[in-house]
Amino acid sequence: MSHRILVAQGGGPTAVINQSLVGVALEARRFSDIARVYGAARGVRGIIEEDLIDLSQETTANLEAVAATPAAALGSTRDKPDVKYCQEIFKVLKAHQIDTFCYIGGNDSSDTVRIVAEEAKKGGHALRAIHIPKTIDNDLVGFDHTPGFPSAARFVTQAFMGANLDNLALKGVYCAVIMGRHAGFLTAASALARRFPGDGPHLIYMPERTFVIDRFLADVKATFEKHGRCVIAASEGIHDEKGEAIITRLAGAVEKDAHGNVQLSGTGALADLLCEEVKNKLGIKRVRGDTFGYLQRSFVGCVSDVDQREAREVGEKAVQYAMWGGQNGSVAIRRVADYGVDYPLIPLEMVAGKTRVMEDDLIAPAGNDVTPKFFDYLRPLLGKGVPDVARLRAPKVEKVRT
Amino acid sequence: MSHRILVAQGGGPTAVINQSLVGVALEARRFSDIARVYGAARGVRGIIEEDLIDLSQETTANLEAVAATPAAALGSTRDKPDVKYCQEIFKVLKAHQIDTFCYIGGNDSSDTVRIVAEEAKKGGHALRAIHIPKTIDNDLVGFDHTPGFPSAARFVTQAFMGANLDNLALKGVYCAVIMGRHAGFLTAASALARRFPGDGPHLIYMPERTFVIDRFLADVKATFEKHGRCVIAASEGIHDEKGEAIITRLAGAVEKDAHGNVQLSGTGALADLLCEEVKNKLGIKRVRGDTFGYLQRSFVGCVSDVDQREAREVGEKAVQYAMWGGQNGSVAIRRVADYGVDYPLIPLEMVAGKTRVMEDDLIAPAGNDVTPKFFDYLRPLLGKGVPDVARLRAPKVEKVRT
Repeated sequence: MSHRILVAQGGGPTAVINQSLVGVALEARRFSDIARVYGAARGVRGIIEEDLIDLSQETTANLEAVAATPAAALGSTRDKPDVKYCQEIFKVLKAHQIDTFCYIGGNDSSDTVRIVAEEAKKGGHALRAIHIPKTIDNDLVGFDHTPGFPSAARFVTQAFMGANLDNLALKGVYCAVIMGRHAGFLTAASALARRFPGDGPHLIYMPERTFVIDRFLADVKATFEKHGRCVIAASEGIHDEKGEAIITRLAGAVEKDAHGNVQLSGTGALADLLCEEVKNKLGIKRVRGDTFGYLQRSFVGCVSDVDQREAREVGEKAVQYAMWGGQNGSVAIRRVADYGVDYPLIPLEMVAGKTRVMEDDLIAPAGNDVTPKFFDYLRPLLGKGVPDVARLRAPKVEKVRT
Repeated sequence: MSHRILVAQGGGPTAVINQSLVGVALEARRFSDIARVYGAARGVRGIIEEDLIDLSQETTANLEAVAATPAAALGSTRDKPDVKYCQEIFKVLKAHQIDTFCYIGGNDSSDTVRIVAEEAKKGGHALRAIHIPKTIDNDLVGFDHTPGFPSAARFVTQAFMGANLDNLALKGVYCAVIMGRHAGFLTAASALARRFPGDGPHLIYMPERTFVIDRFLADVKATFEKHGRCVIAASEGIHDEKGEAIITRLAGAVEKDAHGNVQLSGTGALADLLCEEVKNKLGIKRVRGDTFGYLQRSFVGCVSDVDQREAREVGEKAVQYAMWGGQNGSVAIRRVADYGVDYPLIPLEMVAGKTRVMEDDLIAPAGNDVTPKFFDYLRPLLGKGVPDVARLRAPKVEKVRT
């Protein structure tokens, strides 16, 4: 009974990040040589503030209930530790005799794990540091996909199933903006909403391709002429040929976080800008914009069971790797056949601070849609019970008026 | 075998409007003296364009699949018929020997039914005209509630359950704008998201009360000081003391529909305006705005089973009233005990063109929250299987650093 584990959650919440937390907490209890599992409030921020809770004293029933709850039960942070910050982290880890640090997060968080691990090594502090993946952006290098993405993708798919039907009932142009700064995976998930010929989204704009407003307008015009309507999915991260975000054309002063990222979420400005362009330049009257915002990452009641299971498993594997692996790393997800996964531990350097974007063969040549390969990629991740939609197919009544 | 029924759908789609359509179609098949059930495409617009389909020739399985699909399977319209328009309607009804007109819609649509019924009477045309209720706004006079509202309310509740958790994990101010031009029922539904002490939404602004920006800012400031965060639900219809919509303070040129209504939905402008106020006036850094937009009325996969059942039943009752009732009217929903309903047929004049707003005893005196009575009112409508959320309750680890 000697090891002590600390687990924390960093970055944006997801529908299943608590599954990973609970995976760590419950798996740790199965090791007789793990004395305690601590959780840090608010990510690394809670560590340096010594704000820890003892997850060993949680009941299994409550942990399971928390696992099924979206967002981050420990609280999260956007802090990105520098060397001095990391030294503070060691002091707390050392003081509490913690020798295993599990951090659940995206590429910024994996970089934090890498820095902490490096500083621990330099300082001669014996620390096992494991990064547990999480991000709805699906942008971790070395991963088939990341926990949190399948559930967010399912939300986007179901949202577009409804938005398409709504737009079919009251025709016009509908444009929804979806999260994803550099990677278009989540925006692309809208394609899975299509069921019948003519279904939207008719146009999908991902940040992997330069967004040219004139081309966008030509696309919308052509679609509107063909279908009498147009449903558009656009990533919040779409940018012009210079790499400037389309949203900054509208907003003068933009907010930046500690990582130097421009604020793209939490505002409906981009959808409104795109709608104004369509109204003014194409003269279409009924143009509506939605921004899925925080709903897509924390809506209660839209989750992929595949995502839940895998998020739990990467948490469990993190503890196993920490206890038996003898190495630091990131618990990756690799796809095996159609459909299974393996969880290899990969070097932190492979993941840390890097950003995966959609591979070229997932994006249609015209740059405004996905390929059939993307459907094959995403479909198994959405899980069981994705609702179906149906259409009337009753015959027309012959006109009798002359 | 002599009667012919025509059914159409008007106004904004909902999660269960197709239940009512299918209720009409299937119930009509049980009457041996009903020869045909026709559906009009795009509401009254499809009638005057003689764009009808023969629902009698649908299969039961497909009708059931359509019933479970949100939005309006026949298509909808915002047209508000005048006398001339109604005369065109008669010509088509007469030409197709249709003697029963069922129109599924809100207060604008019920007014259409009233005008059509009046014009039929004047013209000596034997027509039975029945209004079948539908509106997520829940604003029909004479109704306990309206089909479509419970499912939209459930969406809002589940969305706020997640938004509250997200805001708890990464603290700041979160403001979501919800549909509802004059009636705040849907915005008020956010209150049902609360589970634990301190849970948001902390502030709820309904259009039944004047929105005073300074009071709003004072509310946010007080909440932020108390909880370190603030979750706000605001109706798109909030207005100042002169009745001017808050959104028009921001947007210069605003769009109006055929009913003279200002466009409030399909733009994130109001949420962005409120967030800017909070940022600039209170100096709070992390302020995020969402606009639930079209998701709240047509998201696939978030529906109340109570709503589904009742929407089906009002469709069935419409046919029964048409065949056996001998009167025109609107199929109302009245609550009986806790919880059951009756479906009396009430005069069209009671409903047509009128707007119900939240009763005073449902709104807290301060005007920024609901009363316990509202919880009692809404809870049975949300249906079975509303997801639960949980919190960690592990004890704090004692600080050891000196």
